[in-house]
Amino acid sequence: MNTTATESNPPTRESSLDRQDRQTAQRKPLSKDATHIIAIHAKSKSSTLSHDTPQMPSFLGFRNLMVLALVVMNLRLVVENFLKYGVLICIKCHDYRKQDLILSAILYAIVPCHLFAALSIEVAAARHIRGVLGFRKKNEDVKVEETSGQHDYTWTFIALAHGFNATLCLMITSCAVYYGIHHPMMGTISELHAIIVWLKICSYAFTNRDLRQAMLKSEDCTAIPELYSSCPYPKNLTIGNLCYFWWAPTLVYQPVYPRTPHIRWGFVAKRLAELACLSIFIWLTSAQYAAPTLRNSFDKIASMDIGSIIERLMKLSIISSIIWLAGFFAVFQSTLNALAEVMRFGDREFYTDWWNSPSVGVYWRSWNKPVYNFMKRHIFLPLIARGWNPQVAAIMVFVFSGILHEALVGIPTHNILGIAFAGMVIQIPLILGTAPLEKANSVNGKTIGNMVFWTSFCLVGQPIGALMYFFAWQAKYGSVSKAAL
Amino acid sequence: MNTTATESNPPTRESSLDRQDRQTAQRKPLSKDATHIIAIHAKSKSSTLSHDTPQMPSFLGFRNLMVLALVVMNLRLVVENFLKYGVLICIKCHDYRKQDLILSAILYAIVPCHLFAALSIEVAAARHIRGVLGFRKKNEDVKVEETSGQHDYTWTFIALAHGFNATLCLMITSCAVYYGIHHPMMGTISELHAIIVWLKICSYAFTNRDLRQAMLKSEDCTAIPELYSSCPYPKNLTIGNLCYFWWAPTLVYQPVYPRTPHIRWGFVAKRLAELACLSIFIWLTSAQYAAPTLRNSFDKIASMDIGSIIERLMKLSIISSIIWLAGFFAVFQSTLNALAEVMRFGDREFYTDWWNSPSVGVYWRSWNKPVYNFMKRHIFLPLIARGWNPQVAAIMVFVFSGILHEALVGIPTHNILGIAFAGMVIQIPLILGTAPLEKANSVNGKTIGNMVFWTSFCLVGQPIGALMYFFAWQAKYGSVSKAAL
Repeated sequence: MNTTATESNPPTRESSLDRQDRQTAQRKPLSKDATHIIAIHAKSKSSTLSHDTPQMPSFLGFRNLMVLALVVMNLRLVVENFLKYGVLICIKCHDYRKQDLILSAILYAIVPCHLFAALSIEVAAARHIRGVLGFRKKNEDVKVEETSGQHDYTWTFIALAHGFNATLCLMITSCAVYYGIHHPMMGTISELHAIIVWLKICSYAFTNRDLRQAMLKSEDCTAIPELYSSCPYPKNLTIGNLCYFWWAPTLVYQPVYPRTPHIRWGFVAKRLAELACLSIFIWLTSAQYAAPTLRNSFDKIASMDIGSIIERLMKLSIISSIIWLAGFFAVFQSTLNALAEVMRFGDREFYTDWWNSPSVGVYWRSWNKPVYNFMKRHIFLPLIARGWNPQVAAIMVFVFSGILHEALVGIPTHNILGIAFAGMVIQIPLILGTAPLEKANSVNGKTIGNMVFWTSFCLVGQPIGALMYFFAWQAKYGSVSKAAL
Repeated sequence: MNTTATESNPPTRESSLDRQDRQTAQRKPLSKDATHIIAIHAKSKSSTLSHDTPQMPSFLGFRNLMVLALVVMNLRLVVENFLKYGVLICIKCHDYRKQDLILSAILYAIVPCHLFAALSIEVAAARHIRGVLGFRKKNEDVKVEETSGQHDYTWTFIALAHGFNATLCLMITSCAVYYGIHHPMMGTISELHAIIVWLKICSYAFTNRDLRQAMLKSEDCTAIPELYSSCPYPKNLTIGNLCYFWWAPTLVYQPVYPRTPHIRWGFVAKRLAELACLSIFIWLTSAQYAAPTLRNSFDKIASMDIGSIIERLMKLSIISSIIWLAGFFAVFQSTLNALAEVMRFGDREFYTDWWNSPSVGVYWRSWNKPVYNFMKRHIFLPLIARGWNPQVAAIMVFVFSGILHEALVGIPTHNILGIAFAGMVIQIPLILGTAPLEKANSVNGKTIGNMVFWTSFCLVGQPIGALMYFFAWQAKYGSVSKAAL
């Protein structure tokens, strides 16, 4: 437009109204009386938003407007919330029973002991195998099958010992939390600690068993990864090696892990600072925004007013998503990276870019790598190796994970409702349903999948889960609890 | 991770948990006892969100979450609004006085007459100039300067005639609307119609004057664009030519416009359908969402409660921006394109991608091309040609446009508050302030400029203006009016 409209412009100086003209105005000067006859409409053009426009315009500006709108809308809710409730944050009024604290401390101390029990079991097994191999050397003529055949009972006994030890670790904590600890936060932490150690014990036992088997069936030694060669089987059964596994940010045991050359303390400090800020942020948002929303939602649910319930769910979904994202970053980026740095643990892939997931399946494979790795190495692949159908194996994984989720949420809130379990199992149809979208080459296909994932997870699953647990908690204790947030 | 983790996978079938493995699993089959010793952590990796990650991940997923959040937040407000107010839309209760309708009809009929008055003035001028040229031919020795010098009075008289005609057109309507039409919607339409015709008359008069001058001073004929050659000066003074200008979607008169070969009626139908839908959308949103918000805001302003006023402004800014965007599309894309198609008017550039404006100045140059073209051709460039400072010329343009805005909003609401005027004049410092951002090569610079533009325009200027006018209207009539929305 301007280029054509200013065919006969004077060379003007900087002008805020007509800067473009300046560039195209290096022509013959404009006569005083000829300005009003310039051909503004010199040639046919189509509107920017019409389909017959030569090239699609950029819509980056609308993205900026979107960001601005989100900021403004949330700021408005902050102001509204303040005008409605004032300041709800209060440190003193956060009461807990002394018994809870003591019990949590005891649990925190005894749970790791089971790891060392597992070590002693393994040491016994190693001593036994040395005997077996010595026996073999003496009479080469005896078939290996027979010798190892005779000792099946020993291996069964060791397996049983591990099973007993691991189960005990989980049982003690669960009972203590369910019956002894009222405060849901302390309960959740204790239960989570127990589950983590339990998974570590299982991994430790399984891995050492296979290392043992590989040692017996020497032809299988090829299966042992190169990485482990620096610390072959019985050598890894030391307290130091176990302690490293105990603190390493992983759930799968390896005699040897990739390590970083040194600890960058600056890196650690930054991650801890992030953790501190995010924890405060999460605490404030839960107390100031999530708690009141949940409280009003409670009445609405009680009154079964559909319209209001939907309205509440929507309001809750935004705040819960924000809190969840902050929590994710705090745990998987800040905490685990800080821990890994201190432990000089090399593999920091605790998650990949799950937020771009084109399907629910990709999300579950990428948001929580430590658990995903455990499930894959100790449940999924073994089942596959035994010739199971991958679909069924995947279902097993989600059922198992559902049980863990239920324990983690149900036990501390003293309400085994089965919602967390159902929430996990319901993922299977979702995964199968959205799987085709993964292979969609079109950007739209991926976007739709990504939208489905966000909707199902952040905007439906979470708020409903939170509401239901809060509802159950209210029904049982009639008081607000952080756990429900 | 997966590639390393599955070095010894069996060739599995389709699996929802472990699709990636399938691709990398065409190796030696996994022995039943070796799965638990796979080296999951085979090499050092950094977290996706860490700074030491090899390449930055895509955050497209978060854009999708943003869209989803916006949709959910607004849907929630819709539900909330419904629960609070129920349905506010009501056709019957929309009352207007018969007198308003009659007066508007009369104004709509008489306003265009001034265009034809302008034509007759021009015809007279053309007849006169033919006399002048005939006189010249007779005595070539007489200097052109002298002859044209003698007739200055005629040209002044013609200019005065045009001035009187144009002013009359605007004055009659303004007075009628200000004193006679109560309904702000009808008033606005009548006033807008008058202003458009007034601008067309001015452009018509100025253009023909310069064409005349060019004819007199034959050495200036070079200034006449090629485009006009098909219809040289006096030939264009026909009723047909004027009627085309009258209906053409432009404010600048040209004897000849670029034309399209034929009318695509399908295109027209689509544009009209858009217009219908958007009009209904705007009406519903104004009645259901903007009106109540404005009404409560009114009390808050009266009570001068800062917190609530800010909260109201934020809520209003979102709804007003949505309505404004819908209105923009309805007028500049749908209506003007439909009209242009019917008129076979070639130049459809009624706007360019103003939403990406890196500064306020770029926005004003690109969002409303018809007015921008008029200002440029008949105010800005002539002043420049007379050696004015472009800054001052630009200020003149905004002052003039401010007066028109004030007339357009103040007269129909019977409140000449000067807010629209101030709103336009305030743009000058904003333009000067954000001008440096236009030249910013960095994406950030442009984004900041774009944010400043959106904030100043959609999220501050509009809601405050709407609120103030609504406030004034309330103070005067104590009833809600669509004009304030």
